[in-house]
Amino acid sequence: MLQGDQHRQHISGQFNAELDAMKNHLLEMGGLVEQQLGLAVMALLNRDSGQAESVVLGDRQINEMELQIDEECSRILARRQPAASDLRLVLAVAKSTTDLERIGDEATRIARQTTKLTELPPSASMFMELRLISDHVASMLREALDSFARLDVSKAIDVVLDDDKVDGEYEAVLESLITLMKSDTDSISGVVHEMWALRGLERVGDHATNIAEQVIYLVLGRDVRHMTTDELQSLVEARGQ
Amino acid sequence: MLQGDQHRQHISGQFNAELDAMKNHLLEMGGLVEQQLGLAVMALLNRDSGQAESVVLGDRQINEMELQIDEECSRILARRQPAASDLRLVLAVAKSTTDLERIGDEATRIARQTTKLTELPPSASMFMELRLISDHVASMLREALDSFARLDVSKAIDVVLDDDKVDGEYEAVLESLITLMKSDTDSISGVVHEMWALRGLERVGDHATNIAEQVIYLVLGRDVRHMTTDELQSLVEARGQ
Repeated sequence: MLQGDQHRQHISGQFNAELDAMKNHLLEMGGLVEQQLGLAVMALLNRDSGQAESVVLGDRQINEMELQIDEECSRILARRQPAASDLRLVLAVAKSTTDLERIGDEATRIARQTTKLTELPPSASMFMELRLISDHVASMLREALDSFARLDVSKAIDVVLDDDKVDGEYEAVLESLITLMKSDTDSISGVVHEMWALRGLERVGDHATNIAEQVIYLVLGRDVRHMTTDELQSLVEARGQ
Repeated sequence: MLQGDQHRQHISGQFNAELDAMKNHLLEMGGLVEQQLGLAVMALLNRDSGQAESVVLGDRQINEMELQIDEECSRILARRQPAASDLRLVLAVAKSTTDLERIGDEATRIARQTTKLTELPPSASMFMELRLISDHVASMLREALDSFARLDVSKAIDVVLDDDKVDGEYEAVLESLITLMKSDTDSISGVVHEMWALRGLERVGDHATNIAEQVIYLVLGRDVRHMTTDELQSLVEARGQ
């Protein structure tokens, strides 16, 4: 083998290692965000102000990871000048860090609502309904990260299609919360905090969807953001043929 | 002049033209988003369902611009392999399109709440307070876009520092809305829609801040996201010296 080839192979091996490291850092950040979200939901359901506090403190680490991964992306773009699917990977990672960071923010917001809830006298709550929707968005986030790890487009498409269901669940719980406020005015302050937490959960579903859309872009080179469900379904069918 | 130099100069002239075009497209998208936000707020304050409907329809154009500008960014990264401040410009534009698109989404959400409000009997409202906070976030967005156009770091820092004020205004209006619900249970459904609109406005302030942070990153090469107000203030003072 020529020396030049060896050199190129060495460089390209290093480059691949850098891309892998960047992707792994994103998945690591994803794991931390999942953990924060899980803790925030537990704190909300158990009205646990101590746990809520630890979620607020934990957000700092997520923010730092966002900055580090974005810097990693810039460095790779500047030094390696990636093309084609390598470039799409860097861009998908850069967009996804933003969504992960915002999920971290939602976890913090949910924790803040919990702290305020624990300062109020105990009141009626939509415990079961909140639990259902939290489980749903947590599973969307897990699947979105999993689809990124395996570059699994089918799984990513499932996540995107799933978001409509979350939106439906959200509307239903919201209606129940409004009914609760009307029937029991003493509950109003508490219910408002539950409403914000609910909205935060719904947004987590949106961000998980954004990440899944980046996986589809990365693998297929197709930007599916803003596609209607029908357009996305045709894409699924076209792939199946 | 050597032919090679002329060629290089020609290429670099084209490259600069492409960067300028990309930046102008972002500012054009910003103008459209400002317009959508303005219409959404007017529709909300006047309870105008026709105008709300036109905001919902207008969101499509914003989504298309997001896709186009992101494609432009990818193309420049792939073909031109920009470095240093050129690379930062491309990345700042790519991050900012996301924020502009999300402001467009908030405008649509505000419009949807307006449509629901017009279906309810007229009720008490926080008209003046909502107007105040809308004016505030609209001006933050204008300043953020202006700072991007002129690469004006001082203006960008002002936008970032301004966000705390919006958060304070938001909390105050929220308290008033809760008091209103408690004193007049018939108003609850309407007030909940106003609360969502209010939250949408507060988020617009967050997104304007994100854009301003990108301007600071672009000009100074410093990533100021997640800096505390104190850290940002020291940055301002260090620049003044």
